[in-house]
Amino acid sequence: MSEKPIPDIVIGRLPIYLRALQHMAQEGRQVTSSQELGERLGISAAQIRKDLSQFGEFGKQGTGYNIEYLGSQLLDILHVIKVWDVAIVGAGDIGSALARYQGFAERGFRIKMIFDNDPAKIGASIDSFVIKDSSTIKEEIAQAGVKVAMISVPAGKAQEVAEQLVEAGVQAILNYAPVNLSVPPGVRVQHIDPAVHLQRMTFYLS
Amino acid sequence: MSEKPIPDIVIGRLPIYLRALQHMAQEGRQVTSSQELGERLGISAAQIRKDLSQFGEFGKQGTGYNIEYLGSQLLDILHVIKVWDVAIVGAGDIGSALARYQGFAERGFRIKMIFDNDPAKIGASIDSFVIKDSSTIKEEIAQAGVKVAMISVPAGKAQEVAEQLVEAGVQAILNYAPVNLSVPPGVRVQHIDPAVHLQRMTFYLS
Repeated sequence: MSEKPIPDIVIGRLPIYLRALQHMAQEGRQVTSSQELGERLGISAAQIRKDLSQFGEFGKQGTGYNIEYLGSQLLDILHVIKVWDVAIVGAGDIGSALARYQGFAERGFRIKMIFDNDPAKIGASIDSFVIKDSSTIKEEIAQAGVKVAMISVPAGKAQEVAEQLVEAGVQAILNYAPVNLSVPPGVRVQHIDPAVHLQRMTFYLS
Repeated sequence: MSEKPIPDIVIGRLPIYLRALQHMAQEGRQVTSSQELGERLGISAAQIRKDLSQFGEFGKQGTGYNIEYLGSQLLDILHVIKVWDVAIVGAGDIGSALARYQGFAERGFRIKMIFDNDPAKIGASIDSFVIKDSSTIKEEIAQAGVKVAMISVPAGKAQEVAEQLVEAGVQAILNYAPVNLSVPPGVRVQHIDPAVHLQRMTFYLS
């Protein structure tokens, strides 16, 4: 393991590698190569080898990578061998879709609770979740020890919610509100905003 | 304008700048600076100045940027002065949430049609949209001249849908299915996968 901090852009590719390996495992495959991974992902084989080499020696020249082994190593490196409890704030369309999404369990996450500030929603159910009152975010999250949250409230409410989450001990926020969030050092934020993603592509269209 | 192609990572920041400028305009603000933008976005002022300088001269030392002018220039650069029609394939939770999302209109996009392959959904309505039969994707999209699409089908179906979209003339795909898509050169894809975004953050948590 290198002494230098690993660039965040490298970290950002690891979940993509892991996802591809998990698909290969589901297909019953046992061995792959940086070439094959690269073709699946549109990333050069050299880049993949270089990225993975920052974390250790996972394959041998000529024999490739053992899919199960490399997958388990990536789960370990990304800290998703354990399952993280996740809180959702905002039980609108997106929050409800996230609460119902079945794809988290096998990838290291379990939705634990969902909050909203709308009296008409509080106490109602989304599948097995009873929507909690946003005014209880701090107590509920601190008590449950939840470290990971997703925000799906309107843009104008997101910063306030983020601050409550951070105060309650949350360290990683996936933000679906279309606004940038300011958080203290040590807290991670990732933003998902479909319009931003689309605009990034229309630049290239005429 | 520089002769060298502008790095995609720079292009990726422009929609973030545009979003912040649009928020400032909504707040009734008229002038901003690279410092202020940088503080809002957690990006250095120098980086912002450098990014924007690739496209022209938008502000003056000491007087800052005119918010409306810089915003309109970014709309132009990102090709979202025009409104793009968008097709959605997959009318599950996420696809339905996208169809109902009110945030696209003012940012350059208009949902035009939504498809599903489930006979129980075809012909049903999501707000003003009648869900169309996925088997008609190619004709419908080609006929309407839609160039931008979002995929929200299960992972196992996404590649096939992407190929149909590309055949119909789609050039930009926002993919919500948790799988990588292979598309021909010239077609752009962006991926949104909450588990990938979360794993990218749990790397930093202990």
